[in-house]
Amino acid sequence: MRVVITGGAGFIGQRLARRILALGKLVDSAGEEREVTRLVLNDVAEPVDSLPVDKRVEFIAGDFGEPTVLERLITPDTAIVFHLAAVVSGGAEEDFELGMQVNLHATECLLEGLRLLDTCPRLVFASSVAAYGGDLPEVIQDDTLLAPQTSYGCQKAMTEFLINDYSRRGFLDGRALRLPTIVVRPGKPNKAASSFASAIIREPLQGETCVCPVPPETGVWVLSPQQVVESFIHAEQLAASTWGYQRALALPGLTTTVSEMIEALESIGGPAAVARIEWKPDAGVQRIVHSWPVRFQPTRALDMGFQPDASIVDCIEGFVRDELGGQVASTGRQKFAIRTGS
Amino acid sequence: MRVVITGGAGFIGQRLARRILALGKLVDSAGEEREVTRLVLNDVAEPVDSLPVDKRVEFIAGDFGEPTVLERLITPDTAIVFHLAAVVSGGAEEDFELGMQVNLHATECLLEGLRLLDTCPRLVFASSVAAYGGDLPEVIQDDTLLAPQTSYGCQKAMTEFLINDYSRRGFLDGRALRLPTIVVRPGKPNKAASSFASAIIREPLQGETCVCPVPPETGVWVLSPQQVVESFIHAEQLAASTWGYQRALALPGLTTTVSEMIEALESIGGPAAVARIEWKPDAGVQRIVHSWPVRFQPTRALDMGFQPDASIVDCIEGFVRDELGGQVASTGRQKFAIRTGS
Repeated sequence: MRVVITGGAGFIGQRLARRILALGKLVDSAGEEREVTRLVLNDVAEPVDSLPVDKRVEFIAGDFGEPTVLERLITPDTAIVFHLAAVVSGGAEEDFELGMQVNLHATECLLEGLRLLDTCPRLVFASSVAAYGGDLPEVIQDDTLLAPQTSYGCQKAMTEFLINDYSRRGFLDGRALRLPTIVVRPGKPNKAASSFASAIIREPLQGETCVCPVPPETGVWVLSPQQVVESFIHAEQLAASTWGYQRALALPGLTTTVSEMIEALESIGGPAAVARIEWKPDAGVQRIVHSWPVRFQPTRALDMGFQPDASIVDCIEGFVRDELGGQVASTGRQKFAIRTGS
Repeated sequence: MRVVITGGAGFIGQRLARRILALGKLVDSAGEEREVTRLVLNDVAEPVDSLPVDKRVEFIAGDFGEPTVLERLITPDTAIVFHLAAVVSGGAEEDFELGMQVNLHATECLLEGLRLLDTCPRLVFASSVAAYGGDLPEVIQDDTLLAPQTSYGCQKAMTEFLINDYSRRGFLDGRALRLPTIVVRPGKPNKAASSFASAIIREPLQGETCVCPVPPETGVWVLSPQQVVESFIHAEQLAASTWGYQRALALPGLTTTVSEMIEALESIGGPAAVARIEWKPDAGVQRIVHSWPVRFQPTRALDMGFQPDASIVDCIEGFVRDELGGQVASTGRQKFAIRTGS
């Protein structure tokens, strides 16, 4: 069975790839568990870190909005696509045309590629809680209206509608997950308005300074990379009938605040880590971040078996374990046994 | 001031054009009432009936998804666009690619044309209650989730999202009206799944037979052509601040049933009119029609000054007056004084 990951050079794409290779099997559109014989990673360029060394892995560079790339990516034996590629929130707000091109138009090319296979392949799509916005209820429910207040959120919401319609018509078997803010992302800050939420943990724990553009009371709805990857796999494996006509849902996450995250940071990295955060308000970032909801009652997702992290400390400890080899700066103390390749 | 109507050869487009010509003025994006010096009607072909004879009127044939047509249609002095052109519900369900091309892609070309003017023109868009669907509450509220169960509804909902984002960014000043089922449409049956709702009144009153594909207890949410045109004008004239960040709403209509409509038909056309209805169930039409909601609490629209019709009898009498010259078949009796050009 051939499986494709778009955004495969990205951090989540890479983690998801390693998880799929370890599992060895996924569920095809007939509901049968089948061996993954080919795992195709697609991105605009090869990952900074090396690709997983595995004969099942193939890398295809390029934009699937281009017919020649699309044709190589979506071959007749493609059974499952994880669609993670996107221009992030801040980027899509800054460059409207680029956001529309990648997040909507190229995505539609991908859906069309899958439709024309005529095999109803499974598609798992990384949507976002940025699809919500406006005058929101205190707690987001399963039936809360989508009223995005960013171009990124708008493009994600539109893609969800397309996936619902393509699924209803039997063109593909889609599942869209509205991702909370991922904490802790490794690597460098990016143009996502939510970039700070990882930076304020990641940089201090490595002895570097960072900038926090939002006030401490800012609420965030978070999920760890570990749990996001498990959610993608779970979403893929569920029966189509479990999804029904509504192919999108908000993943369960944790409601926290910047100050709570900093408390958790202190418990792991000590006061020296907290001292590395520089407070520098950014009205643009604040406007985007404050348009995102923070409290959810994701009844349907929980009923379907999706799981949040146990705590924000857990999210940070997972990062220290998986990305820092158990070592944090400042004290240099080793908090965990080094576990790699998990 | 130059005003454009897409779908200008259609029934609502023609009525709207006559109403604008009679008004003589509309409100520009600065909120100033200005004279309409040019009214451009666009459609794939000229209307069956003649265009309004008026030196302000110009007809541009062609698909605005084509750059050459778009360029002629959306000129730098275009201040207001009423976007009514669409592939109807049954058509978009039957031909997925055509529906996507016209209802989504060509519409996006139109929005892009307006964005690139850099003048923030006003746009009034004919959306549809087909944007709702799925597991709906008993009564649709202003914050009811959109979950369309037709490709047409999906395309309309996606366009609403685009219009919200374009408006938020100041590219244009959009207003989207989710139209109820229009009763009574003149002319011939079309591919709209809702076509029967007019046919069961229109044909019998003219001595012709018609087919009703849904059972008598079928609920419908209706609005007359007269009231739709008034709503378009009202939507255009409201200040941008009245719309806020949510540029779409469901128009107030009347909740009725096929059997109530037939009672009203009988009160106007007599039992002979009712006898001209042939009952012929159509599962495809029923599936689409039954996915549409019937009861609404359109608080926001009512607060903003939009109005429903007084009764279903009123809707039918309006049709007899405006389209049949006050004459109905069967009895041949004249129910109203003939009023034309209203």
